[in-house]
Order: sequence, then C-alpha cells, then structure tokens
Amino acid sequence: MSDQPRIAPKIVTACVVLIGDEILSGRTQDKNLSYISLHLNQMGVQVREARVIPDIEDVIVDTLNEVRAKYDYVFTTGGIGPTHDDITADSVAKAFGVTAIYHPDAMALLAAHYAQTGGEFTAGRKRMARIPEGASLIDNSLSKAPGFQIGNVFVMAGVPMVMQVMLDALSPRLEGGATMKSRTVTGAIGEGQIAERLGALQQRYPAVGIGSYPYFRGKSFGTSLVMRSTDSDLLDETQAEVIALIRSFGVEPEVGEPS
Amino acid sequence: MSDQPRIAPKIVTACVVLIGDEILSGRTQDKNLSYISLHLNQMGVQVREARVIPDIEDVIVDTLNEVRAKYDYVFTTGGIGPTHDDITADSVAKAFGVTAIYHPDAMALLAAHYAQTGGEFTAGRKRMARIPEGASLIDNSLSKAPGFQIGNVFVMAGVPMVMQVMLDALSPRLEGGATMKSRTVTGAIGEGQIAERLGALQQRYPAVGIGSYPYFRGKSFGTSLVMRSTDSDLLDETQAEVIALIRSFGVEPEVGEPS
Repeated sequence: MSDQPRIAPKIVTACVVLIGDEILSGRTQDKNLSYISLHLNQMGVQVREARVIPDIEDVIVDTLNEVRAKYDYVFTTGGIGPTHDDITADSVAKAFGVTAIYHPDAMALLAAHYAQTGGEFTAGRKRMARIPEGASLIDNSLSKAPGFQIGNVFVMAGVPMVMQVMLDALSPRLEGGATMKSRTVTGAIGEGQIAERLGALQQRYPAVGIGSYPYFRGKSFGTSLVMRSTDSDLLDETQAEVIALIRSFGVEPEVGEPS
Repeated sequence: MSDQPRIAPKIVTACVVLIGDEILSGRTQDKNLSYISLHLNQMGVQVREARVIPDIEDVIVDTLNEVRAKYDYVFTTGGIGPTHDDITADSVAKAFGVTAIYHPDAMALLAAHYAQTGGEFTAGRKRMARIPEGASLIDNSLSKAPGFQIGNVFVMAGVPMVMQVMLDALSPRLEGGATMKSRTVTGAIGEGQIAERLGALQQRYPAVGIGSYPYFRGKSFGTSLVMRSTDSDLLDETQAEVIALIRSFGVEPEVGEPS
C-alpha cells in the first residue's frame, strides 16, 4: 500500500437500458450489455447499472427519466425499427417532453438508401426517421437507419451488428474519466480456503475492488480473483499480494483467466 | 377476432435482479436471465423487468425494496458465496429489516458436506450459512450451500449450474397464473415491407403482443414475427392472419424460427 496522497480520479458513470420484450421473455439472449460495458470502460465510462424493460411506453419513459438523472450517460438498445412495436423514439421524446418529428436528414439518407437498393420507401421505413425534436443523429454505416442522441441519452438499435457500428459512431462525443483497469489471478484452489485472508486483503486495499469468481471446468475447479481500480500502481501491489496469498497454500497461480 | 367475452386471466409478475460487478464490467456474459425467464414462463410467472446491479449494499437494498413492492416475485442471482464480496445475504436481511444469522440447518448441511469431502469448514464457508432471520432455505443439490426465500424474494447463486438446481428446488413454492404462449412465423421479407399492415393487425388483436424481429444469416435476411398471449385460440387466429399477410407478398412463410 502506498503512502503517497492520490488525486481522486474523475469517475464517469453510465446506465444501459435494454428495451425489448424478446429479452425478458427469454427468446433472445442479450449480447449487447457486455459489449457496451467493455467498450465504454476502455473510454473511461463505467457502467453502474443495467435494466431490461419491455416495449411499454410508460415503462420506457419512467425508466429513462429516473436513470438519466442518476448517471452521466444512458445508452439504450432496441425498438427503433420500422414496425408498430418499435416505440423507443416516441417514448424517448415523451421522456424529454418534446415531439417526435420526421428528421429531414434521416429522411434524406433513408430515401437515398432505398432508391439505391430498389426497396420501396414505405411508411414503415419512414418511421425509422422519427426522432425526438432537438436530437442529433448517430450514424449507422451498416443499414443506414440512424440512432440518435438527446441530452445524455444515446439511443441505439438492438441488432448487435448495428448497435456496434452506432457505438463506434457516437464514441467521439463521450467525455471519459478514469479508466477502470483490471488484473486477474487464477488458482486451483477453493474460494472457501482463501476467503478469510482475501477479505483481510480487501480491507487493506479499499480503493481496489477484489472480486472472487469460482470456476468449474469438467473435473478441475478453482478461483479467479479479479482486481479492479483506476490506479495501476495499486493494482500491481494488490496483484503481488494475491499471488503470494495463493502460493502460501502451495498452489502456483496463473496471471490471467484459467486456461 | 372472436366476439366471445373472455375471462381476464390471472397475471403473475416477476423481476429478476442479477447482482454482480462482473456482469456490469462485461467480464461475464450473463446466461441466467433467459434461463430464468423461460423456466418461469412455463409456470405462469411472467418476467416484466430485470436489473443488473453491482455488489454494493445500498444499491442492493434500495433495488430490492423497490421491486419487491412492484412485482409478485423477485429472483436474484449472485453474491452468496464464501468471500468478502458476497454481500447478498446481508443486504437482503437489511432490506427486510432483519438480522442475518448462521442458520442451523444450513450450518448442519455444510458441516456434513465438508466432513464428507474432507474440506475444512472455514469461516468463509460458514458465511454461506448466513441467512436473513425468518428466511427458508432453497436446496442446492449440486454444491450444498443453500439459497433462501424471504417474503416474495428468492435468492439464488450466480453460477448457472447451481442457479438452475435452485430454481428447480424453489419452483413448487410458486403460484403461477396464466401461461404466456407464443407462436412464431418467419418469412424472407423485410420488416419495412410488412410494417403498415402488421401495425393494423396488431390494432385488431390488442390482447396479442406481436413482436417483429429482423434476422440476418449471411446473405439471407427476413423477419420473425412472434405472437404472445395467454389465449391459445386468439394466437391461432392471429397466426393464420400473419401467414396470410406474408403470403400476400408472394413469400411462403415458415411456422417457427428461421432455419
């Protein structure tokens, strides 16, 4: 543990809101949350909460108004396609007390897209240009229909490929803080054996979050210890202590995930 | 659409709370939510919301007190192991205004387990017998350390295999309502082409939720239409209409997921 005074790092927080009946029903296995979390963390934005909510306007409005006040940024996925069950844009508009309009730039780029691909620019497809008044568009290089940003809320598609290009497109707008870094040490030892001393170690390093995760791989089992902090020096110190702790049980730890 | 009056089915709702820094950081891809949702739905319990929250006592307490008042049942995963970061039992106790105690039955079964396997019954492992006063145990046939139920809150492990045996063990205690049934019809047609008529169909069947989900498989794409309702007859009617709708575009739909 270092005695140097440390300047408190700037912490930037986020909430991810996954909008979609199909995730709640179990039909669709969400893959967006972990992708968004890993991406944002690299930019110094820490996801502190996630919610999965249905395609119901009141629920979307209430949830957004709660979490946008609570976190620096909010990222939503889902509900911005062309069909009747795509109600995210209108719900976000309502949460912000504005109207959803057919955004002229969005209309223009969708019209050009369907002219090029020979598809009809149907009323349904025009729905994808509906954006809350005052919002700015988020580019969708894959399938053109844009996401949008209003205030601190970023609205993205639910299809993972499309969400990912939108996340890349919006990233330059984010102001990150300290990046959460991590170290992982793994040992073929039960959590219960190291629990007490690990708890004591955690108390000596309050600025490092030490997580303990059991793993089972066929007949082998063990524990992965994950240390997280914005401070690399502290992480190095903690990692050295964790390695020594595991060795003291006669087990040689690996740095990294179990192989 | 039928003209018969229909008796309103009993709806039983649930919230799933995934507790764990490792899910929020993106390190771990959650697989429990979809499993729990599918399992509960078969029992007539509908998951209406899910939250992913960190291992922070105040957040766990506030979240639980909010959602246990709002839904018939609450199911949590994570944070009931032997290490310092396993704070779910104490947090749940605090949410209910009771103390966490070393539950005698839990102590006895863990003591017997470690006596049999030759492991030491450490203080860390004894932590896994800490249960809110007044809670009843949930059997864990796999690794013995139990989950528990207090009020309408069911507390389970985060490791999927263990969560699954706990979910089986607690299921007889649930009182289900109407089961949400579903039909899926898939067609090689763009969402934007069918959006308008699908929206009109949804308006004629307000008791059926019609979800539209685009899919992309290499160069093939199309739309899966998922109808959900507690009423099988209404689902059959809606499915017939959706099939006719897709055929009217010269596309032969498949019943079921895209193959």
